Amino acid sequence: MFDKIKNMRRAEIVSIGNEVVSGLIVDSNSRFLSTRLQETGIDVCRITSVGDDHEAIKDCLKTALDRVDIVITTGGLGSTHDDITKNVWVDLFKTSLTLDAGALANLERILQKRGKSMTERFKRQAEIPSICEPLYNEKGSAPGLLYNRDGKRMYALPGVPLEMKHLYDKYIHPQLAKENNTCIVHRLIKTTGMSESEIWNRIGSVEELEKAVTIASLPSYYGVNIRLSSVDLSLENAHKKLLTAENLLTPFLGENIYAHDEETLEECVGKLLLKKKHTLAVAESCTGGLIGHRLTQVPGSSTYFMEGITVYSNAAKMRLLHVPESTLIEHGAVSEETAKALALGVRKNAGTHLGLSTTGIAGPGGGTAEKPVGLVYIGVSSENNTYAKRFLFHDDRCINKERSAQAALNLLRLHLIHTQ
Amino acid sequence: MFDKIKNMRRAEIVSIGNEVVSGLIVDSNSRFLSTRLQETGIDVCRITSVGDDHEAIKDCLKTALDRVDIVITTGGLGSTHDDITKNVWVDLFKTSLTLDAGALANLERILQKRGKSMTERFKRQAEIPSICEPLYNEKGSAPGLLYNRDGKRMYALPGVPLEMKHLYDKYIHPQLAKENNTCIVHRLIKTTGMSESEIWNRIGSVEELEKAVTIASLPSYYGVNIRLSSVDLSLENAHKKLLTAENLLTPFLGENIYAHDEETLEECVGKLLLKKKHTLAVAESCTGGLIGHRLTQVPGSSTYFMEGITVYSNAAKMRLLHVPESTLIEHGAVSEETAKALALGVRKNAGTHLGLSTTGIAGPGGGTAEKPVGLVYIGVSSENNTYAKRFLFHDDRCINKERSAQAALNLLRLHLIHTQ
Repeated sequence: MFDKIKNMRRAEIVSIGNEVVSGLIVDSNSRFLSTRLQETGIDVCRITSVGDDHEAIKDCLKTALDRVDIVITTGGLGSTHDDITKNVWVDLFKTSLTLDAGALANLERILQKRGKSMTERFKRQAEIPSICEPLYNEKGSAPGLLYNRDGKRMYALPGVPLEMKHLYDKYIHPQLAKENNTCIVHRLIKTTGMSESEIWNRIGSVEELEKAVTIASLPSYYGVNIRLSSVDLSLENAHKKLLTAENLLTPFLGENIYAHDEETLEECVGKLLLKKKHTLAVAESCTGGLIGHRLTQVPGSSTYFMEGITVYSNAAKMRLLHVPESTLIEHGAVSEETAKALALGVRKNAGTHLGLSTTGIAGPGGGTAEKPVGLVYIGVSSENNTYAKRFLFHDDRCINKERSAQAALNLLRLHLIHTQ
Repeated sequence: MFDKIKNMRRAEIVSIGNEVVSGLIVDSNSRFLSTRLQETGIDVCRITSVGDDHEAIKDCLKTALDRVDIVITTGGLGSTHDDITKNVWVDLFKTSLTLDAGALANLERILQKRGKSMTERFKRQAEIPSICEPLYNEKGSAPGLLYNRDGKRMYALPGVPLEMKHLYDKYIHPQLAKENNTCIVHRLIKTTGMSESEIWNRIGSVEELEKAVTIASLPSYYGVNIRLSSVDLSLENAHKKLLTAENLLTPFLGENIYAHDEETLEECVGKLLLKKKHTLAVAESCTGGLIGHRLTQVPGSSTYFMEGITVYSNAAKMRLLHVPESTLIEHGAVSEETAKALALGVRKNAGTHLGLSTTGIAGPGGGTAEKPVGLVYIGVSSENNTYAKRFLFHDDRCINKERSAQAALNLLRLHLIHTQ
């Protein structure tokens, strides 16, 4: 993707297995490898998924090795009956299998730990193509493989993510980092509350930005992420370019930016709560527990998140959170008034500084002309004031829940930013 | 992947965009397309992701079209500055761009709906390569493209999932289904509570099974899914083969099977609750709301899921669910006794038939030698009895939460199966 830089090392990733080409699983291994390879200044220019087909795999590996100097494959190594990577290597490199003493010792150690005895089928995992080096696997029974000739390197890693990551960190990353002469760095600017086209309209021309960085926008249910990427021979310069571009962009996006890079909205909210020494209780209706789930993804969230009450029935809303029956009758369970009563009720009951609430119609049923599916009210309550905001989403049940939880956490974030 | 079947139509998928090769997003489009293509008897033999690089895309498309008769690309169509698919087509097919009246009318309609006016940049989206047919897009501004010559077809779809799916359903699926002469069918058997190797050991030899089907096991945090795939010229025979294999496998897996195909554990639990006309309340500690979130992913769950109480603090456990202080002092918050008290408390408070609870140490902090990170107790309470089961997981905070929620829903499923 960084075709502007000369002499940049390039890599390809090949993921082997019927599971991926047939759509049964998502290829998260390639995503991991691509991200890690870039940290060592390597441009990943192609990712190929291919089924458990000897000739197709052979063709993939051969053409990849013709195009680039570093090829990493995942999958097709191990004792299950569809593992064929090793045989393809034997064929491709015109070699044969040899029992490797180190791999055998490792296998024996692993079998012993698992209380199993050696079988012929297991033992075959310790055989490796003669012209290759074994990559000893401490997390599983199949060793990885390295082919290294004429400036070309191909690595075969198992498909199990834990083993794949282990071998990458143990053998591949240290070697590539040592040879690194180019740096690729990224900055992710995470926004919520604006559509992708609104963002591009606000930014306008990207000509000036693109002198320093590559820019991409990535919409999701949580909002739109803007990714800046820069590449340079010096890490310092690469970071400088990123900073220049980020400083140009930030004023256009303002408070819609909630976090950067790996930080999540729940982490950002958690930090603000910790900083203010504020505690929180949450009353969820349409989100069903999702806000509590997200808040508690953050280690240490027990410091500020006291309790969550999911009140699906009106009876529970009244009994647990003291929402007045008259409010439910006059305005309905999905209303600004009920959202406020829920936020106030949960805050008072729990004795926390803040209360957050959701009430809405997630769908597919329950909508009316006046109150359609996707209508959600989010309430915030503090000692000084209690208010609610109306949202209207247009998706299916699960996405409406995700969008509602994101909007609720964002409303809380804005509340925390704007109050003392 | 079905190399045994002759004359089977084969397809390749090419996903275009720096986002995917650089690991920023997961390529869910290819997964969707692969699954759908197989429904019409098409074998997807390769999926390639390539960055926004003209020459690399051209090479991918050319070689794919050489290998197979159907190629579908996603991404690189639209008004943003990195959209280059159309230019590659112009180059590859040695043609030029022509303004398409239908695409222009569609674009005008969409802009009007969004309250925007036509610009030169927008207008370029209505231009299509002269030798191609436009695929009119009702969900977005960029039309898809179809190249159709000499028995070879290539489709270009936008990268936005909603638009991609819309065009696939409108143009591609009907055509491919009409031409279909081979059927591929799958059956997913979902298990939980057994490791992948335990499952293979129980099954033993797969020789007999593989006469009828292709078999694959797919582990995840939720358990292990077994996928059976069969292919035949007749749909009836393909289904018969699946059934034969499923009947062979099922006795080995027994009650560890919780669902089939797309059904989730929360849907399965919901069906059992509905069938028994039982209501449920949940008390969550270490899962933080995740069980409530999962239960409420199911439309109509308000019929049986009454309320969820997330009690992170000991004070909340006592105040909201009447866990005796002596239990917390004697046994600790993470104990069999507390899990039972939570399940009992939430059931009694809510007046439901069943109570379900979790209490554990998700990590990374909070573990001791006696009570390590990953220790979780799950409680079930009904009118007849209240009990808790101990689990020990070995992962990070987020995965421990996922595993705990899955184990809790599964314990509830087994309770519902085994009681009147």
